[in-house]
Amino acid sequence: MRMSSLLGKRTKEVPKEAVTAGHQFLLRGGYIRQVAAGIYSLLPLGTRIVHKVQSIIRDEMNAIGGQEVELPLVMPAGLWEESGRYHAIGDELVRFADRTDHPMVLGMTHEEAVVHLVRSELSSYRQLPFMVYQIRLKFRDEPRSRGGLVRVREFTMKDAYSFHGTQDDLDQYYEQCLHAYERIFLRTGLSDVICVQSDTGMMGGKVAHEFMFLTEVGEDTLILCDACDYRANREIAASKREFSEPEKDGPSAEPVDTPGATTIEGLSKQLKVKLEQCLKSVVLMTDKEEPVLAMVLGDDEVNLQGLKRIVRSDLRPMRVEEFGTIDSVAGFVGAKGLDRKKVRCIIDRRAAHASDLVAGANQLDKHLLHIYPARDFPDVEQADIAMVKPGEACPKCGGKLRVTRGIEVGNIFQLGTKYTESMGCTYTDESGVSKVPIMGCYGIGVGRTVAAVAEERNDKFGLMWPISIAPYQVHICALNADKEDVVEVAEKLYNSLLGEGLEVIYDDRSEAPGAQFAEADLIGVPIRAIVSPRNLKDGNVEFKYRVPGRTKEVDLVPVADAAQHVKQKISELMTD
Amino acid sequence: MRMSSLLGKRTKEVPKEAVTAGHQFLLRGGYIRQVAAGIYSLLPLGTRIVHKVQSIIRDEMNAIGGQEVELPLVMPAGLWEESGRYHAIGDELVRFADRTDHPMVLGMTHEEAVVHLVRSELSSYRQLPFMVYQIRLKFRDEPRSRGGLVRVREFTMKDAYSFHGTQDDLDQYYEQCLHAYERIFLRTGLSDVICVQSDTGMMGGKVAHEFMFLTEVGEDTLILCDACDYRANREIAASKREFSEPEKDGPSAEPVDTPGATTIEGLSKQLKVKLEQCLKSVVLMTDKEEPVLAMVLGDDEVNLQGLKRIVRSDLRPMRVEEFGTIDSVAGFVGAKGLDRKKVRCIIDRRAAHASDLVAGANQLDKHLLHIYPARDFPDVEQADIAMVKPGEACPKCGGKLRVTRGIEVGNIFQLGTKYTESMGCTYTDESGVSKVPIMGCYGIGVGRTVAAVAEERNDKFGLMWPISIAPYQVHICALNADKEDVVEVAEKLYNSLLGEGLEVIYDDRSEAPGAQFAEADLIGVPIRAIVSPRNLKDGNVEFKYRVPGRTKEVDLVPVADAAQHVKQKISELMTD
Repeated sequence: MRMSSLLGKRTKEVPKEAVTAGHQFLLRGGYIRQVAAGIYSLLPLGTRIVHKVQSIIRDEMNAIGGQEVELPLVMPAGLWEESGRYHAIGDELVRFADRTDHPMVLGMTHEEAVVHLVRSELSSYRQLPFMVYQIRLKFRDEPRSRGGLVRVREFTMKDAYSFHGTQDDLDQYYEQCLHAYERIFLRTGLSDVICVQSDTGMMGGKVAHEFMFLTEVGEDTLILCDACDYRANREIAASKREFSEPEKDGPSAEPVDTPGATTIEGLSKQLKVKLEQCLKSVVLMTDKEEPVLAMVLGDDEVNLQGLKRIVRSDLRPMRVEEFGTIDSVAGFVGAKGLDRKKVRCIIDRRAAHASDLVAGANQLDKHLLHIYPARDFPDVEQADIAMVKPGEACPKCGGKLRVTRGIEVGNIFQLGTKYTESMGCTYTDESGVSKVPIMGCYGIGVGRTVAAVAEERNDKFGLMWPISIAPYQVHICALNADKEDVVEVAEKLYNSLLGEGLEVIYDDRSEAPGAQFAEADLIGVPIRAIVSPRNLKDGNVEFKYRVPGRTKEVDLVPVADAAQHVKQKISELMTD
Repeated sequence: MRMSSLLGKRTKEVPKEAVTAGHQFLLRGGYIRQVAAGIYSLLPLGTRIVHKVQSIIRDEMNAIGGQEVELPLVMPAGLWEESGRYHAIGDELVRFADRTDHPMVLGMTHEEAVVHLVRSELSSYRQLPFMVYQIRLKFRDEPRSRGGLVRVREFTMKDAYSFHGTQDDLDQYYEQCLHAYERIFLRTGLSDVICVQSDTGMMGGKVAHEFMFLTEVGEDTLILCDACDYRANREIAASKREFSEPEKDGPSAEPVDTPGATTIEGLSKQLKVKLEQCLKSVVLMTDKEEPVLAMVLGDDEVNLQGLKRIVRSDLRPMRVEEFGTIDSVAGFVGAKGLDRKKVRCIIDRRAAHASDLVAGANQLDKHLLHIYPARDFPDVEQADIAMVKPGEACPKCGGKLRVTRGIEVGNIFQLGTKYTESMGCTYTDESGVSKVPIMGCYGIGVGRTVAAVAEERNDKFGLMWPISIAPYQVHICALNADKEDVVEVAEKLYNSLLGEGLEVIYDDRSEAPGAQFAEADLIGVPIRAIVSPRNLKDGNVEFKYRVPGRTKEVDLVPVADAAQHVKQKISELMTD
């Protein structure tokens, strides 16, 4: 590819829309352009990288017996009604009516579509197990798209679905798939990916893992043990928590005026008590509009995902005007005195074992001092509903937990029979009995993977793609492209490398050396061949490398050996 | 791939939903499954073929300098408002509001998206010309989806867009692209594809060609000259028409009762006059609700597309209750006596030169005899608005025209500056002046191409894929798979072929020979290797071929030479 014709401006200006280095460089290097919130066009360079990542994924999916299929993006709503998700999922699912007024959806995931396909093809246990996958477009109407390709609305995803006769068989395949994922991320050049236990969320099922690229700019919070291999998304992370018998004796509860103290921070300041002496009360509403009061200590956070699992429903905050229905006031809610029939109360175990707390009095501008949960509301449900914090004890080994952040680049789920059962997908087993197959599903975000590599592999000048997914393998800079000998050598090198089947980008423009290098740095092709009058004086081509830790390396190679040198460097980098 | 694990039932029953042989075999062979009207899932065999067609297309697009990009499927409506198509296009364009109530569309074509991308990247004439393309999903809410993959709503299309500084440059590139298309269809094994001139329709622009796969089941009607290379879609086809001076003298117009004669056929029968002695009058309404009366002789058809070009508007039939606005009555309309200010009248040239016709009298159950258009309404606009019929004279050479049918598998358009101008895409030319680039666009329906190959290459037993896009290159049938020596030879052959990097499907099931052969015929892999006790007695593997004209050929090849034989046959078929 000649730079003179390459579509995609390289720019010096740091785009305002981008916060992270990877996102900035993808914009500045001419890889991607935003069309609308969470919707991007890929320029030629971006398209090449994405296709390379896809081909690595395809390769590894085929290696574990995957059969590639194509499922539709636009589906009749009826399919999603069969699984129950048409109504269970909120606005992320795009719904529209087609020209004949049939309700349709845009696929954000394809369990329904794959079960629709499989149920017409599967009849006998002899066909099991099998896995099908696709690498296709999806649309999810994310409320807050951000970070370039990290959280987008339209995205390309590899989604795979496996079908099994037994749980053992699924367990085994799940493990196989997990290792395939490790190989995929390794091959795309992501070294900082870890596998953590995760929430199954709207997918249903019991076991799930996420593949997290560790980065400070990640939007997921992860809990890791320093001593053992315990790793979990904070949404499902647990800790070993031991509490002594709670105190029950102490001064009686006593009302206190707390004008305007609707936040824990405000309350703590006004009454001059520590945060952990205040009881934080959060009121939420289930899908069925049933109020739930969740209580944690003032320095804890409610783990909303955990709470959803306990109440088996999605949850939304109670609106200010709804507090009357539980005979209370927003900002001043407390379990003492509330009618348990009107509101389900759940207290975190740490809070339940604490004593002498300040809690809401269910009256405007009033709290209660001297609350002893074990004494004042012993009937309230206890559960671990506080988010795990750094320094807590590992639930597995007792070691110290720490917190880090990550971008989810892949996930795997054991779905069980949620979809096959609801959608009537069956097979006949060895003894002629009709059975429902057990499913696993396995996703990788293609764009997110690219975004993660861009975050991991950059310096202050630009990107540094691993050779496995680099848009080109070698970048020729022809300096002083008006000099005849430079042009001759550069063109010859370009053509001979192309002739060898290599992927070459060739800066054939008459830009100043500084400008050519700056753009080459930005683009980040790993091997750079510089053809210049200075080097040609000694009959050499100069080689530099956009490879982490090797950017200072220089090789001077005789013109005649340049092509050979490139091939050798490519195979070196491939096996690095 | 082992048949025992391949997803996709092969069936004997001819599916009711399918009319054409190709569609039936794609369903029966386990290639595709319908999800909703015009929406399909591709099974693994179908996916493999589609990907091979895509890779041939990609190859040829790269060969003419194409740069691959990815443009979004979901776009903000604003982009389509810029080009004016948001309102100009009907229900085919899916419109919906996203969660924040922003109007969005699903891309059915990507002129808007590509101009949006290019206008931020293009600045100088030095960048021109260039071509970008994508191979991606589109959605068009077709009113009548039919014929399997021929007219679907969700489809994968290769769409390419070129940008030029001059019309000459576009002309040259257009020609280059036309030849690339010829190579693509040749390589996919379609021999019956011709290139015809076509209407530019909703795309705008002046020059356009369609690539038509000739088949009786095609939905497009084509006009071809037997003597020269004139080929055109009937919608824009012309003929050489010579008329002598029209007669003006004859009996005066005279009313006649024609109760219930609202059709030309009824009228001709009732009055016992030939069809071509009746004047067919069709009243249509433009986008601006302006009535247009189109007249042709009774044995002609109005060419609606041609008429649209003349009036520069979409057209819909006038509704029965609207005829009052032109002081006439549905079924009895005639130009004589109509107020030209209320209705624009256009007469086909053949009709304008005819004499003594019957035409509507603008009164219920009344017509007029003895109409001489040249005498009775000489003021009416004349144009060639009748569809060309077989036997007419070629506009180019005067030869005889014939009619045939085809499926449109590709199209190319010279768009001009319709999109770049309306969307403000400019560049600076050599002399520093801001200019608007000229565009071409080039589409190929991937699924349609596959459907066309399936229609062209089949016999009564099933499909016969060309080696270039066959889902597998060789199909091994192991007959009596319970016999040890059969299994040993078949497995060894399978593994050695896989080891050579060949694409092999292996029937490892213990099905009867007849059943194995029937499924192999249906699937249509070109080379078949049969490992059976009978052949093994002589130390041979038997080879047969699913290749048109060669299905009776049999080769008996010693087991040791079988792999070599396959390789040789593949390269033979590749160069056929």
